[in-house]
This record gives sequence, C-alpha cells and structure tokens, in this order.
Amino acid sequence: MVEIRHARPSDYGRVIGVVDAWWGGRQMAPMLPRLFFLHFEGTSFVAEVEGELAGFLCGFLSQTHPDEAYVHFLGVDPDRRGQGIGHALYERFFEAVRPLGRTVVRAVTSPGNVGSVEFHQRLGFEVERVAENYDGLGGDRVLLVKRLDLAPASE
Amino acid sequence: MVEIRHARPSDYGRVIGVVDAWWGGRQMAPMLPRLFFLHFEGTSFVAEVEGELAGFLCGFLSQTHPDEAYVHFLGVDPDRRGQGIGHALYERFFEAVRPLGRTVVRAVTSPGNVGSVEFHQRLGFEVERVAENYDGLGGDRVLLVKRLDLAPASE
Repeated sequence: MVEIRHARPSDYGRVIGVVDAWWGGRQMAPMLPRLFFLHFEGTSFVAEVEGELAGFLCGFLSQTHPDEAYVHFLGVDPDRRGQGIGHALYERFFEAVRPLGRTVVRAVTSPGNVGSVEFHQRLGFEVERVAENYDGLGGDRVLLVKRLDLAPASE
Repeated sequence: MVEIRHARPSDYGRVIGVVDAWWGGRQMAPMLPRLFFLHFEGTSFVAEVEGELAGFLCGFLSQTHPDEAYVHFLGVDPDRRGQGIGHALYERFFEAVRPLGRTVVRAVTSPGNVGSVEFHQRLGFEVERVAENYDGLGGDRVLLVKRLDLAPASE
C-alpha cells in the first residue's frame, strides 16, 4: 500500500540521503536544497510504503504567473518503479494546484532521460521544446507543459 | 550609478555565466536553475552599472509560512564589492515583501563565508544557529533571520 502525504521539513534528511543513488549516482543533491521542504509544503509530497520512503515530489506555485505551477523534482525509488507511484504523486499535485486556478503545470527534464520524457507524456505533458544550456552551460533541458481542466474530469 | 530593477527571465544567461567566477570558482550554477528567474520575478532583482551586470538577488515568498520571505541567492561582482550594491539589493527585497506582510526574512550561507555572515549582520540579520549537513552531506549552513517592522522606519 502506497501512502501519499504532504512533505514535511523532517522528510528532507531521508530524501537527500537517497537522491543521488536514485538518479544512478548523478550528483543531484545540490539541486535540492532544504528550502523546498520548508517553504513549499502545500505543493510537495512524499510517498511511503510501510513507512519507508518510496518517492517524493517538490513543486510550487509560480509567483510570476498566477495560472502556473511548477514541479522542480520528482523521484521514485528505482526498486519501486512501474508501480504508479510517480503518477500518484503527480495526481496529488494536480489536485492541490487546480483549485487554486493553476491550470498550467510546467516541469523540465534532461534530454538523455528518455524514461522521464515518456513518463511525462503518459501523464499528459507535451514537449514544448528542447532548450540548449537552459540551466547553465551543459544544462540542456526538455521543457514540458500540461494543461489542467479547471473542473476535474469525471472518472 | 547603480540601477536596481526586477530580474527578468532574459537576465538568467548573464547571471549563470558569471556566478561560478563570482564565488571564486566554486561550482554554484547547479544551485541556481533558471526557474528562479521565471517564477519569482516580483522578489528577484538585478543591479546594473551602465548596463553591465553588477549584482543580483533571487528571493521568494514562503508558501508554507505566510509571514516569511526567503533569499536564496545574492551575488555581487567581486570588482564592485564594498559599494553598497548587496545592501541596496536587500533593501529593494525588504521593500517588496514588507507590504505583503512578510516580516520574517530568512537566508542561509556557508560557515566558511565569513564575509557573507558579517554582511548579513550589518544588514540586521541575526545568526539563529549553524546547522551541520543542512543542505545534504557536507552542506553546513549558517541560518540567518531578520525581522522587519511592518511600518517602514523613518530615516
């Protein structure tokens, strides 16, 4: 059973302890300072299985664009991929931001991370474009956007 | 003459091109993704001298704590330090967040960056504590806080 709840500041330690390993050894920790767990609790979530960290999502509401929300980080334990955890985290994010009038959700990922691009496309994201040096020199990014209906779709 | 204005998305390229050099060669760019220039324009500023980048500040309003604002990054061209540019950037930030009821401003810096700690203290920040591994393993941080009066002080 996967349980999803809002992230708390105290979750940061566990997340930062696994994030490099979950990304196959890439040094990801500098991109995820503690501030995301302190100041964006309402739009950040963790997934747990029997109390063990299985995934997390850090997002926020754009303070420039009143109709936009942004997902900065999504991670799922490699041993638990393919079980819908990333999907469920995103759905909780959509449910949190849609009532606030945030109908545009943006995220970026690395062009080399084909699995991530495909995952986002299955969730309804479109690839806007691939931008070279988007996040600094060598930081090429795939720009992703999903438009939410203001009224949740019936299921 | 130093001119301070809100940061625009188009400023990101110049900033990210100098940030490592301004920090004496430390690899800072991964901590400063483009998102800060896209989604927090109202609380981010650049300083220019005759059109040339002299400094910048990236901050945001906490979405967890309605009375807090946070400064994520402040940089000043090493050749222009001691001219009050960092001070002026912070004052613009305080002016932007105070009318929104943000009376607590937080920032963090590295314990080894004594100049930064002293700079913040001159601006009225207090050192709350030094936290080991605050931003992940090895990421020790000095936690700084400044309380703003709701009514601006007369000068």
